[in-house]
Amino acid sequence: MSREKFVLGIDFGTESGRVVVVRVRNGEEIASVVIPYPDGVIDERLPGGPRLEPDWALQNPRDYLLVLEKGVPQVLKAARVKGEQVIGIGTDFTASTPLPAQRDGTPLCFLPQYRNRPHAWVKLWKHHAAQAEANQINEVGRDRNEEFIQIYGGKYSSEWFFSKVLQVLNEDPEIYDAADRFIEAADWIVWQLTGEEKRNTCTAGYKAMWIKGKGFPSNDFFRTLHPRLETVIETKVGTDFYPLGQLAGGLTASWARKTGLKEGTPVSVGNVDAHVAVPACTVTQPGSLVMIMGTSICHMVLGGRRQIVEGMCGTVEDGIVPGFWGFEAGQSAVGDIFAWFFAHAVPDYIQREARKLKIPSTAVLEKRAAALKAGESGLLALDWWNGNRSVLVDVDLTGVLLGMALATKAEEVYRALIEATAFGTRTIIEAFESKGVEVKALVGCGGLPEKNKLLMQIYADVTGREIKLAQQLQTCSALGSAMHGAVAARRAGGGYDSIAEAAGRMAHVQKLTYRPKAENHTIYNRLFREYRTLHDYFGRGANDVMKRLKALKREIVAS
Amino acid sequence: MSREKFVLGIDFGTESGRVVVVRVRNGEEIASVVIPYPDGVIDERLPGGPRLEPDWALQNPRDYLLVLEKGVPQVLKAARVKGEQVIGIGTDFTASTPLPAQRDGTPLCFLPQYRNRPHAWVKLWKHHAAQAEANQINEVGRDRNEEFIQIYGGKYSSEWFFSKVLQVLNEDPEIYDAADRFIEAADWIVWQLTGEEKRNTCTAGYKAMWIKGKGFPSNDFFRTLHPRLETVIETKVGTDFYPLGQLAGGLTASWARKTGLKEGTPVSVGNVDAHVAVPACTVTQPGSLVMIMGTSICHMVLGGRRQIVEGMCGTVEDGIVPGFWGFEAGQSAVGDIFAWFFAHAVPDYIQREARKLKIPSTAVLEKRAAALKAGESGLLALDWWNGNRSVLVDVDLTGVLLGMALATKAEEVYRALIEATAFGTRTIIEAFESKGVEVKALVGCGGLPEKNKLLMQIYADVTGREIKLAQQLQTCSALGSAMHGAVAARRAGGGYDSIAEAAGRMAHVQKLTYRPKAENHTIYNRLFREYRTLHDYFGRGANDVMKRLKALKREIVAS
Repeated sequence: MSREKFVLGIDFGTESGRVVVVRVRNGEEIASVVIPYPDGVIDERLPGGPRLEPDWALQNPRDYLLVLEKGVPQVLKAARVKGEQVIGIGTDFTASTPLPAQRDGTPLCFLPQYRNRPHAWVKLWKHHAAQAEANQINEVGRDRNEEFIQIYGGKYSSEWFFSKVLQVLNEDPEIYDAADRFIEAADWIVWQLTGEEKRNTCTAGYKAMWIKGKGFPSNDFFRTLHPRLETVIETKVGTDFYPLGQLAGGLTASWARKTGLKEGTPVSVGNVDAHVAVPACTVTQPGSLVMIMGTSICHMVLGGRRQIVEGMCGTVEDGIVPGFWGFEAGQSAVGDIFAWFFAHAVPDYIQREARKLKIPSTAVLEKRAAALKAGESGLLALDWWNGNRSVLVDVDLTGVLLGMALATKAEEVYRALIEATAFGTRTIIEAFESKGVEVKALVGCGGLPEKNKLLMQIYADVTGREIKLAQQLQTCSALGSAMHGAVAARRAGGGYDSIAEAAGRMAHVQKLTYRPKAENHTIYNRLFREYRTLHDYFGRGANDVMKRLKALKREIVAS
Repeated sequence: MSREKFVLGIDFGTESGRVVVVRVRNGEEIASVVIPYPDGVIDERLPGGPRLEPDWALQNPRDYLLVLEKGVPQVLKAARVKGEQVIGIGTDFTASTPLPAQRDGTPLCFLPQYRNRPHAWVKLWKHHAAQAEANQINEVGRDRNEEFIQIYGGKYSSEWFFSKVLQVLNEDPEIYDAADRFIEAADWIVWQLTGEEKRNTCTAGYKAMWIKGKGFPSNDFFRTLHPRLETVIETKVGTDFYPLGQLAGGLTASWARKTGLKEGTPVSVGNVDAHVAVPACTVTQPGSLVMIMGTSICHMVLGGRRQIVEGMCGTVEDGIVPGFWGFEAGQSAVGDIFAWFFAHAVPDYIQREARKLKIPSTAVLEKRAAALKAGESGLLALDWWNGNRSVLVDVDLTGVLLGMALATKAEEVYRALIEATAFGTRTIIEAFESKGVEVKALVGCGGLPEKNKLLMQIYADVTGREIKLAQQLQTCSALGSAMHGAVAARRAGGGYDSIAEAAGRMAHVQKLTYRPKAENHTIYNRLFREYRTLHDYFGRGANDVMKRLKALKREIVAS
């Protein structure tokens, strides 16, 4: 075993970090450990500190370091792999998850004088308290016809980098001043490992308005947002960004000691958890759509040229695989809609059957729903329980269920909800194809494909496309990171010279695939037409009842 | 007590008959008994006979006689009232519930040679197997521009008299031939009690195309439906109809013996269960809408002149109270929608709270829904789980629920369903008022008002009208029948000379009333506008998605 070479993939998620050891030769996952973050998502009060306002979501960078300190030795031990056999390290992170830091990389929240200041901490991707800042950014961006407005499908999100930076400046200018750097955690962790502040093009392109060959919007734009933001790029962000798979630097002596790895082990630049999964799903060329399927779905596809596609979350050159335009779209709730249904609408007869058969009630629902034929329920839904990300980019849209009769059963509603999310995915696919971005095949990963076979078949039937599954459904991002670690090492270092080469060897799909059934596809074509009619009626201004109901709700709750 | 005078009211329902003894002087209910029909609703197989096809619903006339034989002696005993103290008898029946009989009144199903022939039995109001016949009647009626098409709001129902008679002729002509009479059970029971075949104007007007002063459509119309139907009126139906409250005849000696009543006791002509409730709710003049609120709602109001109001179930002169036009409208599912929700969509957390508080889960839902403010849920529904009777008259419409978010709770859905049915009632009220049929106040009876106080308040808030409740919510029809018995007796016989006079003495409303809250009414005006927009969009042809989904469902189930 000592001649074999391995890479580490480290995937920093929302609640925990995962470290995997992967064999370079064939991508085999040798071992995997998960280290939960002790402080988790900080959304009620700072550790030992003051309460937070609603919609805040922070993290403690100490937790990220713990993943390295505990996770790496544990996984090496579990894999029976020695430090010197590891030829590269890749990492990926949630995004946009930025933090303010000192010039040497020390997070401001590590300093005693700032530890009780919420703005000194990491703002997690799902921190939603910067909506006012996002609104201002969009207003100014549209007024000035800034290119980023197009790139992000018409709207810059409150979840993204500059909304969060501007919130710091607006609400705690002293922290803004104290921050020498605002940096994505994805880049900060690489800085820690290597001592090099080398930022990646993926988070910059998808979350921070950076455009290859053009850089950021002008200082004039930032001054219009806030006079003190004028020089934020030069003073706190920087202008150099490095493509995915590039070597950021070698592992520092200190981290080598702490982890048992070799000093100087190549570390690739950072990546985003969703995007890094694409090559791990075997996709390094246009034509295949990767779906990360969980509480929501993230859709990614590669294209040969720039295209403005309706409702994209981002369109970034070299953003996913160098040499291609990476397109990202998404559905803001998928598994979350089923979770809502399980919690709020599953009747007693399902629970009783579950107890009788000694299986979960979700399994009873899937069994009953699978026994129905397409079109048999007479139901149709719009999958907007959490708004609509792509293609309408509208958080004020809400769910619809139509067609109920006195004989309608719970499993029929459940199936209609699954179908609605599949129609949502098909809407995204058709938006891509209408602009010439081909989607011939689908590859799925994430938690849903394993949990819900009926859903996968319905997605195949609705889209009329075969769906393949990544070999490692749940550890796709970690594998993708490991692959980038192998690319950072280059062939000379025992790895590969490109991500395509790495994917050819290390990424695999399962034998199990879902093929569309022609008779169901025909029926779903009819239902999809109905879905699109309702989608456009409620989503494109013909009847803004959802927005008026939401506004009324806000009015009532406020009074 | 022997000087006091009493009347009997007998209400023949779907599953049972109810007999009440009522004091003539003040309408006080002295006793009430319910006699279940041993054969109930016959919808699977004939008693001891062959299986029925789907959608059939029959009854056994023997069960009606049992209500008299058992119910009358029991109720007299319970009331401690002697037969000679009873000065009149009134009856009411479900409708249209016709049967074929011999010249002497013997139902064909009582004859051994016909007892295994389904068409020889009573066709209950909810027998739904005559849709083809109804379609043909509507087609011919529209072609010939027959007046009944207008009177019934554009559509003659498969539940009504001639649809059922034509079905007998089409499917079992021998039974058609053997029938000397086709007669509503409402009239048949009066015939039994008095020996007189005196038919009433209410069932004839609301269910059998009969128009005061004009009679039935021409023989030519009936011949166009079927050559052998040409003379159905002269040979099997008759042309004389008697207004409500009129004396049909005296109780026969035989029934006097069987029941303990006096021979010759005045019996009024028959009535329909819903319509007879109107004067029992104190309403004998225009301006007040009576709502019989249960699984469905039946809305009745009086008007001074004929009006064609959209989507009426019928518009009949003298049809409810002599001297006025009686308008009937309806919602095909109200309590049934809540029953659907309770059975199919109530989650575990409601059930757990019910067990903890030791109250029914429906009470938990009402308590939680009552704690919400109008407009707070962000939800809106269309109450079409069983189609829409008034004003759209369309059985192929289905339910809609809109506005769901990931935080939507079960009690919010429940409240939205209640609100939707209230919007349905308001739509009917506005249809009346748009044609000059005034609706100033509402009076409710039936099972829902007692069960659901939240619902009553929401109806007041949505309609902006005070709702009074009948004193006897559940026995309103029986009281109405008893009042008509008192009118049949006339003042000379110890009763009253008109139904208005009887109502003035015998009918009462409760002290408890529901008054609209101004702030809720304002909010519901906004929500009602949204309801009407969706109502018209889905109900008037802009988007026939519901019909297409139903058609697809039928196609799938048939294949």
